[in-house]
Amino acid sequence: MAKQKKAPRPKAETPKGFRDYFGSEVTERAEMLRKITGVYHAYGFDALESAAVETVEALGKFLPDVDRPNEGVFAWQDEDEKWLALRYDLTAPLARVYAQHRNDLPTPYRRYAMGPVWRNEKPGPGRFRQFYQCDADTVGTASPAADAEICAMLADCLETVGIPRGDYVIRVNNRKVLNGVLETMGVTDEAQSAAVLRTIDKFDKVGEEGVRQLLGKGRLDASGAYIDGVGLSEEQAEPVIAFLTSKGASTQQTLANLRSAVGASAMGAEGVDELEQFAALLEAQGYGSDRIVIDPSVVRGLGYYTGPVYEAELTFEITDEKGRPRQFGSVAGGGRYDDLVKRFTGQAVPATGVSIGVDRLLAALREKGRIGGEAQGPVVVTVMDKARMADYLAMVAELRQAGIRAEVYLGNPKNFGNQLKYADKRASPVAIIQGSDEMERDVVQIKDLVLGAQIAESATLEEWKERPSQFEVPRAELVGRVREIIEGQAR
Amino acid sequence: MAKQKKAPRPKAETPKGFRDYFGSEVTERAEMLRKITGVYHAYGFDALESAAVETVEALGKFLPDVDRPNEGVFAWQDEDEKWLALRYDLTAPLARVYAQHRNDLPTPYRRYAMGPVWRNEKPGPGRFRQFYQCDADTVGTASPAADAEICAMLADCLETVGIPRGDYVIRVNNRKVLNGVLETMGVTDEAQSAAVLRTIDKFDKVGEEGVRQLLGKGRLDASGAYIDGVGLSEEQAEPVIAFLTSKGASTQQTLANLRSAVGASAMGAEGVDELEQFAALLEAQGYGSDRIVIDPSVVRGLGYYTGPVYEAELTFEITDEKGRPRQFGSVAGGGRYDDLVKRFTGQAVPATGVSIGVDRLLAALREKGRIGGEAQGPVVVTVMDKARMADYLAMVAELRQAGIRAEVYLGNPKNFGNQLKYADKRASPVAIIQGSDEMERDVVQIKDLVLGAQIAESATLEEWKERPSQFEVPRAELVGRVREIIEGQAR
Repeated sequence: MAKQKKAPRPKAETPKGFRDYFGSEVTERAEMLRKITGVYHAYGFDALESAAVETVEALGKFLPDVDRPNEGVFAWQDEDEKWLALRYDLTAPLARVYAQHRNDLPTPYRRYAMGPVWRNEKPGPGRFRQFYQCDADTVGTASPAADAEICAMLADCLETVGIPRGDYVIRVNNRKVLNGVLETMGVTDEAQSAAVLRTIDKFDKVGEEGVRQLLGKGRLDASGAYIDGVGLSEEQAEPVIAFLTSKGASTQQTLANLRSAVGASAMGAEGVDELEQFAALLEAQGYGSDRIVIDPSVVRGLGYYTGPVYEAELTFEITDEKGRPRQFGSVAGGGRYDDLVKRFTGQAVPATGVSIGVDRLLAALREKGRIGGEAQGPVVVTVMDKARMADYLAMVAELRQAGIRAEVYLGNPKNFGNQLKYADKRASPVAIIQGSDEMERDVVQIKDLVLGAQIAESATLEEWKERPSQFEVPRAELVGRVREIIEGQAR
Repeated sequence: MAKQKKAPRPKAETPKGFRDYFGSEVTERAEMLRKITGVYHAYGFDALESAAVETVEALGKFLPDVDRPNEGVFAWQDEDEKWLALRYDLTAPLARVYAQHRNDLPTPYRRYAMGPVWRNEKPGPGRFRQFYQCDADTVGTASPAADAEICAMLADCLETVGIPRGDYVIRVNNRKVLNGVLETMGVTDEAQSAAVLRTIDKFDKVGEEGVRQLLGKGRLDASGAYIDGVGLSEEQAEPVIAFLTSKGASTQQTLANLRSAVGASAMGAEGVDELEQFAALLEAQGYGSDRIVIDPSVVRGLGYYTGPVYEAELTFEITDEKGRPRQFGSVAGGGRYDDLVKRFTGQAVPATGVSIGVDRLLAALREKGRIGGEAQGPVVVTVMDKARMADYLAMVAELRQAGIRAEVYLGNPKNFGNQLKYADKRASPVAIIQGSDEMERDVVQIKDLVLGAQIAESATLEEWKERPSQFEVPRAELVGRVREIIEGQAR
């Protein structure tokens, strides 16, 4: 018999591309999501929570010519050979849920959902394979009022979580207008139309002149490679350029420019009408162009969506990793997609919705100093005499009953310095000390750890004497005095 | 070339054993979890959120002699051949996190975690393959005060979510006492010791006499099959029986009975001392035996845990599916497990913790009528004239600004009856109606849908006339009058 090898110890690490979240990273996100879903709820949206696991068939990611579902999702085979996968977004499960339960759900169906999604992609700095989304969608209505409502709600969400008015703008565009532009250009060939769409998607990067070149003969990119163009004449390309640059000083001006860009196209005119109606509906609710603006240069997602497309951008500047100022950028996006459940039922059902990039929005709030003030740890009651644990536990119980976060030190109490180091690591505001001497005199020592740290850093001897960071109070005054200190620290 | 087959439509269904949660099912759970984590936080516990995905190696479920991880978890191979899996509980990830980050974490480390876990098990009625857990654990201390704290915290959690004192009891037992009993019995053989443990686990089902038989020669079970016994003499089995039935009228009596059951065993005496200390610590904080009680008949988990074991039971009666009254039973459990991270580091680290069965506790709250009063839908502003959508949107915006959940009807407005049916499906408290006539006179119709339903069900013509469920108010009074109605309905 071969000698049995001892199994090596497992490595204590997350799988590649996954991470752990600690303390305030968890609670701040939970609080932000609570506020956002509060707004969604106020708008009449209902919560939906589907499972993390769907059949690959329902997700629609299965390629018939490979054994294994394609890249992008985490998938595995069930015991009965069915392929299951982790959801990669919250829209695919919504499509499945709506198709499955449509007879029991109200029409239109307004639903919100939040939770992690998973992508089997190459992780990178700040790019994880599990991240949160927080979506709201309205299913079953083609009304532009549904799109307008989503945009108004998005503005409310941003303000509710702490992005002040003026620090964000929601830009809106409409795919139908672009379709009208393509019609006017005489681009009817599907391949050519797709090439034009791809070019438009590059507008953010290459600008007006770059798009001109790419629609025509082509251009040299930054790396020196020559990118072939779509091959349109300058004249033919003109409506696209007019479309992309049609943003005017006012909504009226923008709409007029768009009308001219779509020429005689009926589809294009319908798109411009929708945008006009959309702007009027928002104006009626008090959402002016300081918050929600028609901006034909918003092209992200135009290839995917079928009507209005919207994107929320934060407009304040931050300093990037190289020290250069730049705009914070996009934190949410969405639009209208009109065949949500067709795959399942054969019937097209119109839908419109938004997805908030939870982690980017959290990063923005931290950047603005709206969250992430150092999280306050618990009051730590130190242990001077292990046999008197019951007394210490009674103290923390009293503190908690008064609404003060508190705990007793549960490590080895022998080294008192370790207890204070522990309190420091926990960001405790206050430590409580009661030895046998204090016990006999029915008093406790209260140590103000925040003040103590300040004094250690900068105080002169005189100041130190004047404002001692540790003092004695009668046991009966414990809760009141601790509260005073914590309230004082918060100021 | 073979004729291309059209792909069949995918089925709109969850994978077997998974389900969707709608509306209040989601929000009630979120609210309960928020309350529980609020208590955990007050006790000084910090949030931890690990990813749903772990390496199978870290979870410790990989069997070296099979290609595929064993049953029980959902697992798959990563592109670099590593096996990944969905977590099956929150304790295994805690072990990995603590081993990975132990140098940065405080010691002791109090952490809470909540979220879904996944089990690749055969689903059954009420048994799903994804469900929630909400855990709190203290890592890095062997102090009985840590166990006492968890039990006090569990009592606070139950009361905070709405289980009144008297409707629950937390029963505590201690594995060391049992070990002492085994020592006294002279059971040292590991196989025999395991057989005794398995028998004890059947105490709930077979009772004292059954355990006697199973420890001795064996017994006929209900199906008529003969179950072989452990083969102990009656005298030898006596200490186990004494242990299982040692609960007395008071904590003191129970402790005395246990001392007699463990005889001369030092390990047993240590266990009884721990229980005594444990009870004293809780008593000092005001948690008497009306809430937390030493009960040696609690045997669930005694095989798994190494010290104290605790279980929260709801003591009120419910009616089961066959109409018989029965106790609601267990909603949380936990205990001390003293080699949490040994697999990773080789070093034993003591830990103790509790896991709340979120779905069972939710079911209990619904049973008690503490939650699940019909969730109130939004006020629905109906659409009498599609061209005046902006006016209707302005109404809902006003209602929301006053904190009233509200939405405009976004379906096809042609059939007014459908709009009221929709409001009904949404459980709307109030519908608002403004046609061109009302518009001209600057009034709105307010329809009290709750009162309307009551009248439709039971009112006489006189009552109906006296309390009309629909009335007209000036447009300016819309918000105030809607608020009055909703507040009236809530009473």
